[in-house]
Amino acid sequence: MVRKPQTVELPSIGPLDRTAGHLGRQLAQALRNAVRRGDLKPGEVLPSTRALATSLHIARGTVVEAFDQLIAEGFLESRPRAGTSVAQSLTTPAARTPERSASVELTTLPKRAALFAQVARQFSALPAAPFAVSVPVGAAAPNDVWRRLGNRLRARGPGAPAGYGDPQGARALREAIADYVRRSRSVRCSAEQVIITSGTQQGLYLSCQVLLDADDMAWVEDPAYRGITAILESTGRPERMIRVPVDAEGLKVDAGIGLCRHARAAFVTSSHQYPLGMPMSMARRNALLAWAGSNNAWVVEDDYDSELRYAGHPFPSLQGLDPNRVIYLGTFSKILFPSLRLGYAVVPDNLVEAFCGARVLMDRNPPNADQHVLAAFIAEGHLDRHIRRIRGVYADRRARIIETIERLLPKKVAWLQPSDQGMHMVLWLGRGVDDIAVASLAAESGVAVRAVSPMYSDGKGPMGLILGLGGFSDDEIEIATRHLARSIAAVASKRGNVSAAKRRTPGRSSAKRT
Amino acid sequence: MVRKPQTVELPSIGPLDRTAGHLGRQLAQALRNAVRRGDLKPGEVLPSTRALATSLHIARGTVVEAFDQLIAEGFLESRPRAGTSVAQSLTTPAARTPERSASVELTTLPKRAALFAQVARQFSALPAAPFAVSVPVGAAAPNDVWRRLGNRLRARGPGAPAGYGDPQGARALREAIADYVRRSRSVRCSAEQVIITSGTQQGLYLSCQVLLDADDMAWVEDPAYRGITAILESTGRPERMIRVPVDAEGLKVDAGIGLCRHARAAFVTSSHQYPLGMPMSMARRNALLAWAGSNNAWVVEDDYDSELRYAGHPFPSLQGLDPNRVIYLGTFSKILFPSLRLGYAVVPDNLVEAFCGARVLMDRNPPNADQHVLAAFIAEGHLDRHIRRIRGVYADRRARIIETIERLLPKKVAWLQPSDQGMHMVLWLGRGVDDIAVASLAAESGVAVRAVSPMYSDGKGPMGLILGLGGFSDDEIEIATRHLARSIAAVASKRGNVSAAKRRTPGRSSAKRT
Repeated sequence: MVRKPQTVELPSIGPLDRTAGHLGRQLAQALRNAVRRGDLKPGEVLPSTRALATSLHIARGTVVEAFDQLIAEGFLESRPRAGTSVAQSLTTPAARTPERSASVELTTLPKRAALFAQVARQFSALPAAPFAVSVPVGAAAPNDVWRRLGNRLRARGPGAPAGYGDPQGARALREAIADYVRRSRSVRCSAEQVIITSGTQQGLYLSCQVLLDADDMAWVEDPAYRGITAILESTGRPERMIRVPVDAEGLKVDAGIGLCRHARAAFVTSSHQYPLGMPMSMARRNALLAWAGSNNAWVVEDDYDSELRYAGHPFPSLQGLDPNRVIYLGTFSKILFPSLRLGYAVVPDNLVEAFCGARVLMDRNPPNADQHVLAAFIAEGHLDRHIRRIRGVYADRRARIIETIERLLPKKVAWLQPSDQGMHMVLWLGRGVDDIAVASLAAESGVAVRAVSPMYSDGKGPMGLILGLGGFSDDEIEIATRHLARSIAAVASKRGNVSAAKRRTPGRSSAKRT
Repeated sequence: MVRKPQTVELPSIGPLDRTAGHLGRQLAQALRNAVRRGDLKPGEVLPSTRALATSLHIARGTVVEAFDQLIAEGFLESRPRAGTSVAQSLTTPAARTPERSASVELTTLPKRAALFAQVARQFSALPAAPFAVSVPVGAAAPNDVWRRLGNRLRARGPGAPAGYGDPQGARALREAIADYVRRSRSVRCSAEQVIITSGTQQGLYLSCQVLLDADDMAWVEDPAYRGITAILESTGRPERMIRVPVDAEGLKVDAGIGLCRHARAAFVTSSHQYPLGMPMSMARRNALLAWAGSNNAWVVEDDYDSELRYAGHPFPSLQGLDPNRVIYLGTFSKILFPSLRLGYAVVPDNLVEAFCGARVLMDRNPPNADQHVLAAFIAEGHLDRHIRRIRGVYADRRARIIETIERLLPKKVAWLQPSDQGMHMVLWLGRGVDDIAVASLAAESGVAVRAVSPMYSDGKGPMGLILGLGGFSDDEIEIATRHLARSIAAVASKRGNVSAAKRRTPGRSSAKRT
């Protein structure tokens, strides 16, 4: 297919935009587009730079610059006395690719993409309104010390712009955390065992990565935080997750052993069961650790908000009872603020390197500046003062919510289950009042609640709503509660028409969650 | 096994530490420890509070407080007229668990844990010394505008402490980035397609998660960045990764088609091949996209440092040539500073939700404050000014390194392969001079280089070192180069003794990398 090179005209190159500048770059782009559209074909010779310059009313040097660039890019070729032509090597133009592929790709997205898209919809962030959890507004926000410390350390301190850091996190912060969890949570560890994370979610993700080989099973509470069930579902092998029921004492260890004795890990919210709110009893703690010890299993202790306790001392951590078996996860999202994205995992010595390696592959290392601000905040005693202060603030907000709910919602319709600690309570709904419908309707009037029933494995759990504590004012709580009462009443009045039971199919737990 | 309850003595409870305060808490902890050690057994009755108070020389109220706490924890039980005893439910004491499990767990760590631990060793951070890449010291650091903008936005602006955010990232930053990549990299996208990441590594990780189903194959360049090969190896199915050789024009698309036409994704560093430094030719770009289009495959374009170009215009991005097929990854680690941990992925519309969902499971959402600082930094024109400035700085540092290397290292021993762009160059070593040995020896004298040969699939690639550009002074470069020259000479002089060829086994690529 030898073809005599021929000079082509370039009708598709319209006038260049003189006001936009960079005429050479504009011309180069126009020529690239012409090649992609197929207006210019491999082997075709372009007009001379002189002719093209004349026809486009631009300087010849501008055309030469554009040609040189395209020659460098491999679009054009220049041979002595043969002029400049479209490179012969462009034999597989991508010109028709986008159109051809458009229909294909709509039908063949990866299977996992669909799964992740569903997760994104379930986790859509709640607005900063009652009853979202951990919203650092008003008295719940950190005071000005936090900001001033930050300004100082970013200017001259270790918080200044820096290079790549330690995947395990800044040493100063790890030391401050090791000391803090020893004092406050009976966690026994050195700074060498602390891995800085971006919060509990990353701690859970890393634990799944490191602890579970391809065929390993894991116990997860039923009901549970969606953040852990979704990770295990996303592996494409949801059957690896064994949901173990909880009762008033927490995870039913005997039931777990009955369902799957040889699970490799158990994920528990032992201080404050999520979502139900009770702590795991001492007997269950011992039974869980005994099972783990005799089955070569790990326990992942998700201790997301035990700092906020309104009565009594906290229970000792599982980690403190058996440091070689327990991965302890903590976060500053609750006691400081979620947008900080800093938390920690305390892991046995022989897993430290593995956690660091798994973290490297996810995101290399945590951002530097805020780690040093937080380290100083803890070391200088500000965190202890802050916790003492917000414990009072949240106790007060909690009392206010309880009072308002009890005043505005008849017990027949909905009743609160307060717990002695943490940043949320469960509001149980009357028989047949669909919690997903209530959450969805409440969202329309700006009230932020999450439904409880999808946190149960079969989606048939009791109907309830998570009410989080944020630093909202009395008025905001009052107004939101009135809206919520109306939403509940509206859904309750329809329960004859839309059968809630009908919606409680097993697939529901992975369906929409508002 | 009915046993008459008997009152026990508590010899193991030593004197409490009066100076440490919290006597009740100390006593509770001592009693817990006694139970765990087995000194106190289920059903055993404790001394009366009065007797214990007397023997410990503390107030009776303090003992009552400790007992109450332990009753609440389920450690102790109290029955009328029977006194306080260790709870019968503690029938499976964890007492001997740590000892029993210690030996077990040393032999049975998860398989993946060992793999991740290896990754951690390979990625140990280099010190902030020549020739580490992207070290923002001296003239390469951002100027004071960055810090002042941060102080302002954190005090009163959108950078103040906040709740949970959008997994996709702050809208203001996504808009600023969409505009920036359109202008500078011919990337065609809207803010809706931008996902804020913590840098290129997270972009690569997310791409692997979303694009590859369990049995899908992926093309990866040979040689390649360890950050992508390690992700694919960590899945436990390394055979899914097809290493495709590169030549002077970049990835050899024909070779890839020959090896595995039906791969589902190709990971390329098309602007600036890592580690070799050349751009992918236009012909190869077209061939790659044509293959992707006709095979329903995705192209992941890792554009980690194309902003720093010292001659000519940059090539148009692959994304701009076929926005429906390409995931474009950018980062601010190179043009601003690595410790910021902010980058972005630009993805086709139909993958946006999936990327957000995958990110939610890893770490929920990016930290808030720096996103807003960066958004303002870009929108107010500071980034463009910064890039113009550091382009000069790095061009200057690059010229200085070239001059110093050529002056101090004879071409026979080592020769530089400068490229027209980016933040690193390759220094090739003479025949048989082991790059891993040189890197290791250089590290001892404080010089930071990485070996090139392990970046090849069989570990038998040519021997070379990555020299990164940082804001180091002339003196620092001079001294480091002298140290490096000595390290190379020392290794070269030994090549007769230690056979480098012997070390070039196939397994070496996953071995130690300094």
